Amino acid sequence: MISQQTGSWINKYFPITIWLKSYTKEDLNGDVFAGIITAILLVPQGIAYAMLAGLPAQVGLYASILPPAIYAFLGTSRTLSVGPVSIAAIMIASALSAPDIMALGSPVENAIILAAEGGLILLLMAALRMGGLVNFISHPVLAGFTSGAAILIILSQIPHLLGLSKNPCGVGLACYGDYLQQINWFTVGLSLFSIMLLLSFGLPLSRLLKRFDVKKNIITGISKSAPLLVIIITTILVKVYLLPEYHQVSIVGEIQSGLPKISFSFISNAEQWKTLLPSASFVAVIAYVESVAIAKVTANLTNKTIDPNQELIALGAANLATAFSGGMSVAGGFSRTMVNFSAGARTQMAMLIAVLLLSIAVMFFAEQFTSIPKAALAAVILIAIFPLVKLRGIIATWKYDKSDGIAELITLLGVLALGIEEGIALGVAITIVSYLRRTSRPHIAVVGQIKDTEHFRNIKRHQVETWKHLVLIRIDENISFANVNYIIDFIENETGNNLDLKHVVLIFSSVSHIDSTAFEALKNLITTLKNKNILLHLAEVKGPVNDKLRETNFLEQLSPGQVYFQTVDAVESLSKK
Amino acid sequence: MISQQTGSWINKYFPITIWLKSYTKEDLNGDVFAGIITAILLVPQGIAYAMLAGLPAQVGLYASILPPAIYAFLGTSRTLSVGPVSIAAIMIASALSAPDIMALGSPVENAIILAAEGGLILLLMAALRMGGLVNFISHPVLAGFTSGAAILIILSQIPHLLGLSKNPCGVGLACYGDYLQQINWFTVGLSLFSIMLLLSFGLPLSRLLKRFDVKKNIITGISKSAPLLVIIITTILVKVYLLPEYHQVSIVGEIQSGLPKISFSFISNAEQWKTLLPSASFVAVIAYVESVAIAKVTANLTNKTIDPNQELIALGAANLATAFSGGMSVAGGFSRTMVNFSAGARTQMAMLIAVLLLSIAVMFFAEQFTSIPKAALAAVILIAIFPLVKLRGIIATWKYDKSDGIAELITLLGVLALGIEEGIALGVAITIVSYLRRTSRPHIAVVGQIKDTEHFRNIKRHQVETWKHLVLIRIDENISFANVNYIIDFIENETGNNLDLKHVVLIFSSVSHIDSTAFEALKNLITTLKNKNILLHLAEVKGPVNDKLRETNFLEQLSPGQVYFQTVDAVESLSKK
Repeated sequence: MISQQTGSWINKYFPITIWLKSYTKEDLNGDVFAGIITAILLVPQGIAYAMLAGLPAQVGLYASILPPAIYAFLGTSRTLSVGPVSIAAIMIASALSAPDIMALGSPVENAIILAAEGGLILLLMAALRMGGLVNFISHPVLAGFTSGAAILIILSQIPHLLGLSKNPCGVGLACYGDYLQQINWFTVGLSLFSIMLLLSFGLPLSRLLKRFDVKKNIITGISKSAPLLVIIITTILVKVYLLPEYHQVSIVGEIQSGLPKISFSFISNAEQWKTLLPSASFVAVIAYVESVAIAKVTANLTNKTIDPNQELIALGAANLATAFSGGMSVAGGFSRTMVNFSAGARTQMAMLIAVLLLSIAVMFFAEQFTSIPKAALAAVILIAIFPLVKLRGIIATWKYDKSDGIAELITLLGVLALGIEEGIALGVAITIVSYLRRTSRPHIAVVGQIKDTEHFRNIKRHQVETWKHLVLIRIDENISFANVNYIIDFIENETGNNLDLKHVVLIFSSVSHIDSTAFEALKNLITTLKNKNILLHLAEVKGPVNDKLRETNFLEQLSPGQVYFQTVDAVESLSKK
Repeated sequence: MISQQTGSWINKYFPITIWLKSYTKEDLNGDVFAGIITAILLVPQGIAYAMLAGLPAQVGLYASILPPAIYAFLGTSRTLSVGPVSIAAIMIASALSAPDIMALGSPVENAIILAAEGGLILLLMAALRMGGLVNFISHPVLAGFTSGAAILIILSQIPHLLGLSKNPCGVGLACYGDYLQQINWFTVGLSLFSIMLLLSFGLPLSRLLKRFDVKKNIITGISKSAPLLVIIITTILVKVYLLPEYHQVSIVGEIQSGLPKISFSFISNAEQWKTLLPSASFVAVIAYVESVAIAKVTANLTNKTIDPNQELIALGAANLATAFSGGMSVAGGFSRTMVNFSAGARTQMAMLIAVLLLSIAVMFFAEQFTSIPKAALAAVILIAIFPLVKLRGIIATWKYDKSDGIAELITLLGVLALGIEEGIALGVAITIVSYLRRTSRPHIAVVGQIKDTEHFRNIKRHQVETWKHLVLIRIDENISFANVNYIIDFIENETGNNLDLKHVVLIFSSVSHIDSTAFEALKNLITTLKNKNILLHLAEVKGPVNDKLRETNFLEQLSPGQVYFQTVDAVESLSKK
């Protein structure tokens, strides 16, 4: 018994033990190929997203080694590819460029604390079982945010593509124009070459290969190796023609070679931890929400399920691991996960293989990475990010639901105009406010009796019997601070002009909770109605509500108003009075 | 026709026209007496609450003249006494003592802008018809906030009561002790005398007078003149014994005499307006919420109604008026309104009379006010505020509803530990989060058919027929981003281990809205179930939901799953398949 329990405990917290037990040779075949392809993608992405975040290249590479390995042990998704991702990278860039944060320490130090703090926040959320709260980042807000962040990413890459030595605009929409005369045409040439090569390796090449009956995962493999190819070719061009020396083409520059060293030196600075807390929360929550969304896509395709709470643990641990090994914040990447999946990955073994290959690359080829032109990396980012800008999505959302469309548009504009964190906070606030507004108008019906039955129906929709001295009002929702004023107003309107009225019965058949604000308001209603010589009664009160009313002095206040078991009892007793 | 419409328009926006039309001599009798009593209360309160806010005395007196007069024309409450109030005063004190705000200008300038900005915010809320949003300040949050603010007010008066020359602690709990040796025992004597006089004029005197069959409103009049009496007596003591000169007893000091001058000079400074915006919003919203709550209490007692949106207009205009006439932010005061009401006020004429008397006092007796000892004012504040500290309320709320009790306690502790604005923001956030958590778990039931009927009931509670290949699931709430994940998880659990299952029917009889997040999730559910060879169907879809589904590609995705008009149709068609 005990060993079985231990077993299920291990299975729950270490999902690797589940799939490893039934691991087959076919699984390994799929995983090896997918692992190679994902590793090919991880190298340029690791370096590019570090650049996007404003960090040295090795910070992105280190984030691609230990964190995905940790996730492989703890994660419930079998195909999610954890590592540096573009949205988190632009959020990191935005956080690190704030003056008060820059004053605290070097960008690398701040980035590491950001990751560690984010990891701890996710673990805390797991402990408090708060995974469900991220539901409140609604689909329109997430969509508007993603489009807005993608536009910011594209704008941030323009200086790299044009070879402008320094982008004085930072993250944001402004001031392009003045310094465009500094354009470096050699860099522009490299950018255009990279973009064209990347585009031609996409759909056109896939279609061509399909016509030659090449296997689907091989097509994926070839077309997804374009980024690495672009980087190899442009790096060779840089070295052969000495482009940095003679033509001022920017390259990645110094990279620490070798595997990351485990360090705990970042833990001590309390001031940094405090100042970075808001940004760390935003990055962590967004990383989690996007990762779970991506994990669910591939899990649905293979009839697997994702455990949101275990994902908090896995992603929290992965972010702690990235901090300890000198990397930036990590999440599940959409494009990389889809590549991993379509290249045939069956389990997280694919990611473990990718990590192994990447470690070898970092150990032996770091020297070569230093000559990669930034323009090629910017092109890789540009082509990867462009599909994330979905402006037509806003129109589709608007057509379906106006207030959701507005929330999506405002989030997007908020991200562009106010900044990344402010934009998403604004979007969440708007969604919650409009949700509260909607739920503050519950369904209430004045009901009457269907002749010769014990059924009661809405007097507006059915032919029913009503009474001169008696009104029956059915409340179709739980009563809380959010809707109690609407309910009271409704009752006061119904009872306002009816001078014959002596009894109001509230039918509580759908009410299973009354919070304390609503409770006070209902007590006041008793008094208000008594002042008009009207008695309030209740009918069909559910068990838990009844218990609460009995515990307090509500029933004495209600008296001589009564609580009836069935609505029909109330009608029999009150309709003739 | 047109004149009638104009008439109703005027009645709506100028409620004074309604009661003035039917004004009687009895009304006047009641109003004159109540007006005198309220004026007697307004003088010490105006000076005391200005002191509480850290402002010169005339700022409180000016706030007691034009604003109540404006409210008399625009307000829908006939007995609300608008003017300076303690809770707003402590909020102003807290806002004005922030270093960044102190740097912007003099306290008086900042206080005037705070009032003007608050007034504009209330008018804007009126224009957007956002009165309902203040419902989201729930009863426990308001109660916790009021207790917390009252404790802060009491703490802030201790230095005045003890005659400590300067309170280095500001608003907050700290550092009392070190400088207690500076206690001025003459001041302490004045404080104790004032407190005892105020206490003896309360219940003991009322009971005594009642025994002599004195009329109820005369009793109110006598017992409520205690604050003025305290101030007159202590001021005489100050003057006779030259207490400030010989014994360092603090007095009010310089007061500008004469009526307020209308000035618009505060409008220009954009930087001040921007910095004060958050505090102005908090003060305005709290002033509004408390005023409406108080107005409702007396309206309920006399079968009158309050129009929340018109109250936004009236209180917004009153706060603009206070700014133009050099006063501090205003609201309806609880104790003053109750005094006004129990002294026999029938209409706002009582407040107009009070304003007239106060104007005379300000014109001719301002000189005398300068010698009022601060200790007496602090005693007036102390006795007025003490009943607002309701710690036992937290226990009562906790007993009724644990999460409401926690919200009340956290708001109170938040106000004490973090500050007034932070405390209430925390309380509102906690209430909304716990509300969202609760609504994110909607009621869902697996249902079966009651034999030989067309009725379907919960299989857990009734003896019903079920089927091998078919499951019916009834969702009892609107589907939105807040609850869709719970619903999807429920459905996936129900369908997870049933290998015979071929059809799932969702019964939408209670669903009248599906937002776009929920819509996307339901589309994904179709795919997930199809991957398990299960078809999704819908039944009893309401008109508006049906329209939305038809406008999109939902029905094509659902196909070959269908939408059935009645649940019984679905059962007939699917139960044998």
